[in-house]
Amino acid sequence: MVPHLTTALTGPLLDIETKMLENEAAIERWLRTQWLEHTPPFYASVDLRNAGFKLAPVDTNLFPGGFNNLNPAFMPLCVQAAMSAVEKICPEARNLLLIPENHTRNQFYLQNVAGLANILRHAGLNVRIGSLLPEITEPTTLELADGAKLLLEPVKRNGHRIGIDGFEPCAILLNNDLSGGVPEILQGVNEQFVIPPLHAGWHVRRKSEHFTAYDRVVNAFATEFGIDPWLLNPYFGVCGKINFQERTGEECLALNVEALLMRIRAKYSEYGIKSEPFVIVKADAGTYGMGVMTVRDASEVKGLNRKQRNKMAVVKEGLQVSEVIIQEGVPTFETVDEGTAEPVVYMIDRYVVGGFYRVNTARGIDENLNAPGMHFKPLAFETGCSLPDCTQAPDSAPNRFYAYGVVARLALLAASLELEQTAPVESTVAA
Amino acid sequence: MVPHLTTALTGPLLDIETKMLENEAAIERWLRTQWLEHTPPFYASVDLRNAGFKLAPVDTNLFPGGFNNLNPAFMPLCVQAAMSAVEKICPEARNLLLIPENHTRNQFYLQNVAGLANILRHAGLNVRIGSLLPEITEPTTLELADGAKLLLEPVKRNGHRIGIDGFEPCAILLNNDLSGGVPEILQGVNEQFVIPPLHAGWHVRRKSEHFTAYDRVVNAFATEFGIDPWLLNPYFGVCGKINFQERTGEECLALNVEALLMRIRAKYSEYGIKSEPFVIVKADAGTYGMGVMTVRDASEVKGLNRKQRNKMAVVKEGLQVSEVIIQEGVPTFETVDEGTAEPVVYMIDRYVVGGFYRVNTARGIDENLNAPGMHFKPLAFETGCSLPDCTQAPDSAPNRFYAYGVVARLALLAASLELEQTAPVESTVAA
Repeated sequence: MVPHLTTALTGPLLDIETKMLENEAAIERWLRTQWLEHTPPFYASVDLRNAGFKLAPVDTNLFPGGFNNLNPAFMPLCVQAAMSAVEKICPEARNLLLIPENHTRNQFYLQNVAGLANILRHAGLNVRIGSLLPEITEPTTLELADGAKLLLEPVKRNGHRIGIDGFEPCAILLNNDLSGGVPEILQGVNEQFVIPPLHAGWHVRRKSEHFTAYDRVVNAFATEFGIDPWLLNPYFGVCGKINFQERTGEECLALNVEALLMRIRAKYSEYGIKSEPFVIVKADAGTYGMGVMTVRDASEVKGLNRKQRNKMAVVKEGLQVSEVIIQEGVPTFETVDEGTAEPVVYMIDRYVVGGFYRVNTARGIDENLNAPGMHFKPLAFETGCSLPDCTQAPDSAPNRFYAYGVVARLALLAASLELEQTAPVESTVAA
Repeated sequence: MVPHLTTALTGPLLDIETKMLENEAAIERWLRTQWLEHTPPFYASVDLRNAGFKLAPVDTNLFPGGFNNLNPAFMPLCVQAAMSAVEKICPEARNLLLIPENHTRNQFYLQNVAGLANILRHAGLNVRIGSLLPEITEPTTLELADGAKLLLEPVKRNGHRIGIDGFEPCAILLNNDLSGGVPEILQGVNEQFVIPPLHAGWHVRRKSEHFTAYDRVVNAFATEFGIDPWLLNPYFGVCGKINFQERTGEECLALNVEALLMRIRAKYSEYGIKSEPFVIVKADAGTYGMGVMTVRDASEVKGLNRKQRNKMAVVKEGLQVSEVIIQEGVPTFETVDEGTAEPVVYMIDRYVVGGFYRVNTARGIDENLNAPGMHFKPLAFETGCSLPDCTQAPDSAPNRFYAYGVVARLALLAASLELEQTAPVESTVAA
């Protein structure tokens, strides 16, 4: 189930992997000491791109929605990590309310919710699923494609708490990324643990803040282990105040694209990389692969046609795009089932608990794969990411996956820093 | 790889398993809150006996020596749990010194040491192996049967610290049960983390103290979940001041045996169990299955012949037996490869990380299996113990294993209580 790598990979990536293997104990210790100062998010998934010459995260999701895609053999790892997370955040908790996205027709997403609820139950919590959908006015059982059933119940507000009829949760786990803002029923809830905190939602998050934090993390890591940080980090720039519909801000965007392409070209030349650099322009807030463009030349972002502008202007739940991030494109050299593929690594607490490949046979190596036509390869990870085998070649599957797990955890650490920085200042109460 | 159960198991054990499955979230929470008050040992293994009508621990080992027998698929679980343990005990630790038993010729034990060192390395520690053997005066490489190599180095004392040449450990992990007492080189070491603490050694431990603590644990658990504690707990009695060579204390032993058999007969009659009760007489301190006798009638312990007395008088490393525990015998109804079998569950920190079956084709269902002729079935556990499947029958393999994991963790909790009680009182320094 290991993906076929279309390149011999004899370039710098092998160096990175060799370095990671040689320094495994030191890397694990470095991460361990980072977690003494920073609290990992309850869970996260990271999209990686392996270009052969570099290995970098391109997106970090704090409301992961693909637990159904994980290798079932890794479920005990998920349960153990969830136990560890619960022990840290709310050890006394008995009841947990899971609040999913408002997708009642997406079978894959519903299976993710069922899988996540299962993990939490095995970790020792009574789990019920609270829906924010106005049409869920009473307990509603949905039939899943795999034959399982999922019970959605309406969330009720009670003072500064939420719950469902006959169920008083001590903890609320959001699997809803709040793209549309914090729903009224969740505002001011302060007598229960809300996990992750509300400011992890896309109404507050900016990809540029995440990658600024990632810069700090990867620079510290790269200095410690003598690695060029660029090999683990995509360059990026930001363009605020853009309005695709009114065509304002195009000039700023074009200048940023050009500047970024120049920096990438210099690095490509330094490493003797022959391929043509490209950048990805995407909304600075939001997810679901909407509002994403691959750009090879600054001229491409000027004079966009109506269709292109519409595509870029709005992401999930009607969120208007007024800020964009321009990120170095990292081509993927991985293919699975003859489709272009990128690894997605799943983490709970500070542990890598699994992963899968996002595969899109309709997309190229320089395109966003989170798009119609994608499918998932749940069994792609043959071994856990915590077990590199030093007797095998650095590019053998278990070792490549160890490197994936390291880079994913660097992104996880960046998410911790990001959440620390964006946390609302709590009002101090005089004694 | 699931053992064939020779009984249909329609008796009370199914009730226990059903109860455990129904209460899984509550049991996990109960355990979680216990760990808020008690620190789990770094690692432990528990020998269980499944009699069909009861499921109980019969021995708890705080220096587990069978990591080589675990299913390799569970290694990521071991690494994750070891990360969690290290994070709690010594997060800043970089170097760890592993001190094994003085068995340089036992290939299986050496593979255990290699396996344990591997887990710790993957968890982020530099691990070196320090031998207490006087003949190891310089670094010595041993070839293992599986082709791997193991480097043993002489332990050096330096003030209140120990280490090996060129290696300053912050933590010492003992995989040596100290049956012969605390070696001089380890006495007064107080500037490093010693894991587990020295008083976990067999020079201090008494099985009767462990099972006294287990009584407390299992009574609390059984009350919480409405289970007859006897179904999870072997009755026991103790006899101090016995001298097998001089034949003193035989009367005390016989009286205890008779009293215990009477209590067991009453329970057998309550549950309609037809088989003949028996007890196990064994040294209250020590391990390795030496000094163990199966007794069906009090008269059997009077007038032992020389061979029997010699067998009972001495356990590992010449430790003289002067105290014995008389423990209710729990027959095993499990067979693997046509041999009598008992499950051994492995834990690191508070997590079940694997297990195997100890199989002995030369022994009966009422005998000690830790004896010549035993072998191990590493792949016996088909799934992790954290994942019972409620859609399967209570006696299906994953569910039986969940129950094993619960009972093993009750014994782990008892070990925590035991270590708290036997901890030396630290001298208070006036300020």
